[in-house]
Amino acid sequence: MSWNTFGRVLRFTTWGESHGPALGAVVDGCPPGLLLDEGAIQPFLDARKPGQSKFTTQRKEADLVRILSGVFEGPDGQQQTTGTPISLMIENTDQRSKDYSEIAKTYRPGHADYSYDAKYGFRDYRGGGRSSARETAARVAAGAVARLVLPEVQIIAYVAEIGGDAADAANFDAAEIAGNPFWCPDAAAAKRWAALVDDARKAGSSLGAVVECVATGVPAGWGAPVYAKLDADLAAAMMGINAVKGVEIGDGFGAARLTGEQNADPMRPGEDVPEFAANHAGGIAGGISTGQPVVVRVAFKPTSSILTPVETVDRDGNAAEVRTKGRHDPCVGIRGTPVVEAMMALVLADHKLLHRAQCG
Amino acid sequence: MSWNTFGRVLRFTTWGESHGPALGAVVDGCPPGLLLDEGAIQPFLDARKPGQSKFTTQRKEADLVRILSGVFEGPDGQQQTTGTPISLMIENTDQRSKDYSEIAKTYRPGHADYSYDAKYGFRDYRGGGRSSARETAARVAAGAVARLVLPEVQIIAYVAEIGGDAADAANFDAAEIAGNPFWCPDAAAAKRWAALVDDARKAGSSLGAVVECVATGVPAGWGAPVYAKLDADLAAAMMGINAVKGVEIGDGFGAARLTGEQNADPMRPGEDVPEFAANHAGGIAGGISTGQPVVVRVAFKPTSSILTPVETVDRDGNAAEVRTKGRHDPCVGIRGTPVVEAMMALVLADHKLLHRAQCG
Amino acid sequence: MSWNTFGRVLRFTTWGESHGPALGAVVDGCPPGLLLDEGAIQPFLDARKPGQSKFTTQRKEADLVRILSGVFEGPDGQQQTTGTPISLMIENTDQRSKDYSEIAKTYRPGHADYSYDAKYGFRDYRGGGRSSARETAARVAAGAVARLVLPEVQIIAYVAEIGGDAADAANFDAAEIAGNPFWCPDAAAAKRWAALVDDARKAGSSLGAVVECVATGVPAGWGAPVYAKLDADLAAAMMGINAVKGVEIGDGFGAARLTGEQNADPMRPGEDVPEFAANHAGGIAGGISTGQPVVVRVAFKPTSSILTPVETVDRDGNAAEVRTKGRHDPCVGIRGTPVVEAMMALVLADHKLLHRAQCG
Amino acid sequence: MSWNTFGRVLRFTTWGESHGPALGAVVDGCPPGLLLDEGAIQPFLDARKPGQSKFTTQRKEADLVRILSGVFEGPDGQQQTTGTPISLMIENTDQRSKDYSEIAKTYRPGHADYSYDAKYGFRDYRGGGRSSARETAARVAAGAVARLVLPEVQIIAYVAEIGGDAADAANFDAAEIAGNPFWCPDAAAAKRWAALVDDARKAGSSLGAVVECVATGVPAGWGAPVYAKLDADLAAAMMGINAVKGVEIGDGFGAARLTGEQNADPMRPGEDVPEFAANHAGGIAGGISTGQPVVVRVAFKPTSSILTPVETVDRDGNAAEVRTKGRHDPCVGIRGTPVVEAMMALVLADHKLLHRAQCG
Repeated sequence: MSWNTFGRVLRFTTWGESHGPALGAVVDGCPPGLLLDEGAIQPFLDARKPGQSKFTTQRKEADLVRILSGVFEGPDGQQQTTGTPISLMIENTDQRSKDYSEIAKTYRPGHADYSYDAKYGFRDYRGGGRSSARETAARVAAGAVARLVLPEVQIIAYVAEIGGDAADAANFDAAEIAGNPFWCPDAAAAKRWAALVDDARKAGSSLGAVVECVATGVPAGWGAPVYAKLDADLAAAMMGINAVKGVEIGDGFGAARLTGEQNADPMRPGEDVPEFAANHAGGIAGGISTGQPVVVRVAFKPTSSILTPVETVDRDGNAAEVRTKGRHDPCVGIRGTPVVEAMMALVLADHKLLHRAQCG
Repeated sequence: MSWNTFGRVLRFTTWGESHGPALGAVVDGCPPGLLLDEGAIQPFLDARKPGQSKFTTQRKEADLVRILSGVFEGPDGQQQTTGTPISLMIENTDQRSKDYSEIAKTYRPGHADYSYDAKYGFRDYRGGGRSSARETAARVAAGAVARLVLPEVQIIAYVAEIGGDAADAANFDAAEIAGNPFWCPDAAAAKRWAALVDDARKAGSSLGAVVECVATGVPAGWGAPVYAKLDADLAAAMMGINAVKGVEIGDGFGAARLTGEQNADPMRPGEDVPEFAANHAGGIAGGISTGQPVVVRVAFKPTSSILTPVETVDRDGNAAEVRTKGRHDPCVGIRGTPVVEAMMALVLADHKLLHRAQCG
Repeated sequence: MSWNTFGRVLRFTTWGESHGPALGAVVDGCPPGLLLDEGAIQPFLDARKPGQSKFTTQRKEADLVRILSGVFEGPDGQQQTTGTPISLMIENTDQRSKDYSEIAKTYRPGHADYSYDAKYGFRDYRGGGRSSARETAARVAAGAVARLVLPEVQIIAYVAEIGGDAADAANFDAAEIAGNPFWCPDAAAAKRWAALVDDARKAGSSLGAVVECVATGVPAGWGAPVYAKLDADLAAAMMGINAVKGVEIGDGFGAARLTGEQNADPMRPGEDVPEFAANHAGGIAGGISTGQPVVVRVAFKPTSSILTPVETVDRDGNAAEVRTKGRHDPCVGIRGTPVVEAMMALVLADHKLLHRAQCG
Repeated sequence: MSWNTFGRVLRFTTWGESHGPALGAVVDGCPPGLLLDEGAIQPFLDARKPGQSKFTTQRKEADLVRILSGVFEGPDGQQQTTGTPISLMIENTDQRSKDYSEIAKTYRPGHADYSYDAKYGFRDYRGGGRSSARETAARVAAGAVARLVLPEVQIIAYVAEIGGDAADAANFDAAEIAGNPFWCPDAAAAKRWAALVDDARKAGSSLGAVVECVATGVPAGWGAPVYAKLDADLAAAMMGINAVKGVEIGDGFGAARLTGEQNADPMRPGEDVPEFAANHAGGIAGGISTGQPVVVRVAFKPTSSILTPVETVDRDGNAAEVRTKGRHDPCVGIRGTPVVEAMMALVLADHKLLHRAQCG
């Protein structure tokens, strides 16, 4: 079925296709009285938007957001949320009118062409239609609203690894992240990645990536056991991003190789709250935040849009071949980074409100 | 908040604490006319139940399920589902009346003691209360009902790795899985693990594990883009199991280290449906099943219940120390295996019905 | 489909059939720290239970509730809610083993026999199965939990009319309500109704009723526009009670016959909040409470279980006739009164928490 | 809280304020392959739109709908639904820039001014903001999509009563309904109402109304017991329409005054399905459709916008007075009629899909 709403209390619904007239999100349940105008959203869309460097797709989209409802005059002539649904719209402008006849009839392996057809009987094939990563612009816009609900929380996402080449945690420099086209916290790695991604781009190949996201300032107590655990909701949020194939909380798969002694997070008396000597758990125990940083790792596969011909079938079941010419992202994990941040914000904001509902 | 319901159309709600009188599940939305009695559920509970070997906790629970509603006389004197909610109850029998004073006042690091207290202000500390893995018995019972909805699907889960020692895929033998106490598909690995886990048990230590689950027979077309994608729902389902810290679909994090060429899943003409030359995607593209086997990998951390003393604090914030004496699971991933299977069944059954709702 | 959960934040799920072993409710999302034991629920079940007078069905059910989860030791040796799901169970004891062969094969007009069969292909016909009003015992138990969430609110329901004979508002005496077998606030009317209902009972006939419910102490601001309005949720809650065919808020259908001037609720300065000169609106404007008493009126049809033979068909489509011998309620509105109260409590408690989620 | 989504499988979310730039709906879960373009929606909006006669508000709105997503090329050059969310937008054009200072500071009794302020701390007061009946345009647009899901069902709503003057059922003429400005099925009543409403309009007064809606062609078996009963969902849908204060199914409150014998709906053998000798039940038994026409009656209060001054308070709690000059609807029930039809379609379509999910 189609299910385009996410969240339990702070809910958002997105709509729109890659090459339709527009796409958007409706954010519902947002508390009233938060300062919100387009200027509070646009920077996050700018961070995600294509064509920013030669390392991302050359599709040109202004990705200008418009707020159509849910805000009104606030203090000092500023605009604030009213508590009613916030409708956000982004018009598509660069729907290049190319010939889609090939993709219309032939399934691109690794894309959702075949599965959408199998489900719905047909599909909007222009640029992937609803399955296009362009939909994530709506999440990023919604995520900007969610951030307003979380003034106490700092969220930062960065690329930790591209094509198997990992940034060095010892070189971690938060200030570096926005300073290179890879959201890389390690200047040396960024330099290596420039060559790596450029080679892939020139060869019409593509690379996978791992993105990490850390939220600090999350108090202990957020999370809704047992079927809306904070980590379960984060897993769904991240796994639902286009091209994502894996999610870890804290040490993740690494924890499966540790002993109980190695994986322990000893606690010590702290000032207001206990201190933790380690954070293998990634800030979540029993599905509830512990007050430690919430840490998520997300695996992006390499995009299936490559220049090398791949065997496939057409809609009639005949053998065919497909190769992707033209603009595409050589490493979708890069542009996925602001989306990971947005989803972290959306999940945390929802859980903050959920916690307040039950526990006051 | 508390959120104890899972699913969208086939929904189940669980309740109960580790040391309360009973625990259970209410399964709602199940189609009518499916043959169901206790005998269809009990074998799955038996697979999960404790005390089966020296490699799992020695708590003795019969884990007998009772169906309290939702079934009625069917053909040939058999009992069948009526379409109304199915209430399943399992009584707790071995709630050993030990002294809980230590755990009542002192937080066990790695457990949910501190986070539950931070959330609710206090907690039922007997055996972890609601945060105990005992709750998963209710999921396994619900999962047995979900299986009835999926006669076309075969689901099998097995342990792929314990303490970093992986089973060899070349030795994979499905018949072996139920033949050793580890759900291990590789007889040689099972032998090694016996020593490994026994050592851990004797040392009062614990080990992590990786569980794999494969569902075959899932037709192309199940999944609900974009916020109830099949992979996203599986990620939530698995990450919500006690002690799970990571989830992968198909190649998962491995895909992040591949190129687009290596990660391709070429398609070829098949008899009824296309054949896939590979299944890096784990049977899901764009959140919708492709007709290939659905493959999930799940990382279980080592349990935090160890004999080695760990630093902690008490409820008053004073320094303390905790060590776990008595019965516990040296490798919770083992008993987690039937739970992974159950969650796979529950997610697939829900998506089968969701698909039918929209697409007939 | 089957959909046995009600509520958005404070949710409850009921299960069970009229003649199964038991029925129950799972209440989820309840705040922690509320004093709760069986004694807080039983009086409400006693008010609803059958066999209390000759004016209700003579089925004898103890309707003893058992709390199976969600509570733990609180202050002073009392039991309190933990924030986890509260499982409530009521065992059926008087499932008279009568011969159901007639009802099994023949549809009782006005009952849900035919519609259940049309939906599910068959049904548990014993006493109406899931469609029996016995299910409302679970709502009443859940409602008792909801009341704990609403210490500031007083809820009272009473029968305003039986068989077209209305109680006189001028004789309204709250103390009288529990003093007669009709929940009638007018002693004179109660006397008349005794004769009226007794005549119906002896004749094997049945009578409709109108129940009113008033909640005072609800602050202004509860309600979730625009598709979970307080009045819309109350309408669903009440219309979903067995035998209910109409719901009014405030003046209801009477308001449709007034002019704007007559229907006005003028406001005047009050101490803390404005005073209202009238309450035609029944305490709700725009789906949000105004601080005035919330007033609901509910129409119960006469039960279809009557001694007079009624034309019908059997499962094979042949003409048949049905008449109801044995125990039944001559006026189901009477026993519906505690159910109306319970649903009012459940809706208000849910909206209190919903309001807190968004507006702090 | 804010909760702007309705439905379980076929869900829609609306957004927008009376005097914002636009309003709209996102319809999710719609089956693929249904022919849909703006032309399939516009006639229903035209039926609802203001300024059609002197008997409705003189605000001029073109109410042109635009489909922004969820449709794509279908057969014969027509456009069809894809199964992805359908975004519908209607721009506001006649937001008369009048002086809102009075309404901004003074609560209009009977409107949602006070309750919105009590909830959110402030409100968009222009024309009622989100609480304006203008929001119902979005429902009507969504309802047009729902109708596509229900080719087997015919839905018709009409005004049965204005200001206490009822149309005569004996004069019922379906062809008459769209032939007068009152959706009145009785030509004689329409004539009387013209005078009645005109008098009210000239006097700056307002009148209540009762709207009836009948859906024929609904097969037996739709409905989701016990907390999403068809009648309960209809009650919520109707009670949530602006100015509605009462809802009846079938005989409604009238049934409360009947005996069981009078209220019986005897069944007789029919061709494919049984025939019913009467339909007191309004086509629903036990929350499930019986195959008889589904009949709903809805009470609209007179609008509170009247010329006569009404006592009130301002935001500072001081005594004030309010009277409504300028354009308004003398009888909001008239324009509510297409909204009742739309909500009937939306509830039925949702239940058709829900039924299909569980029962195939």
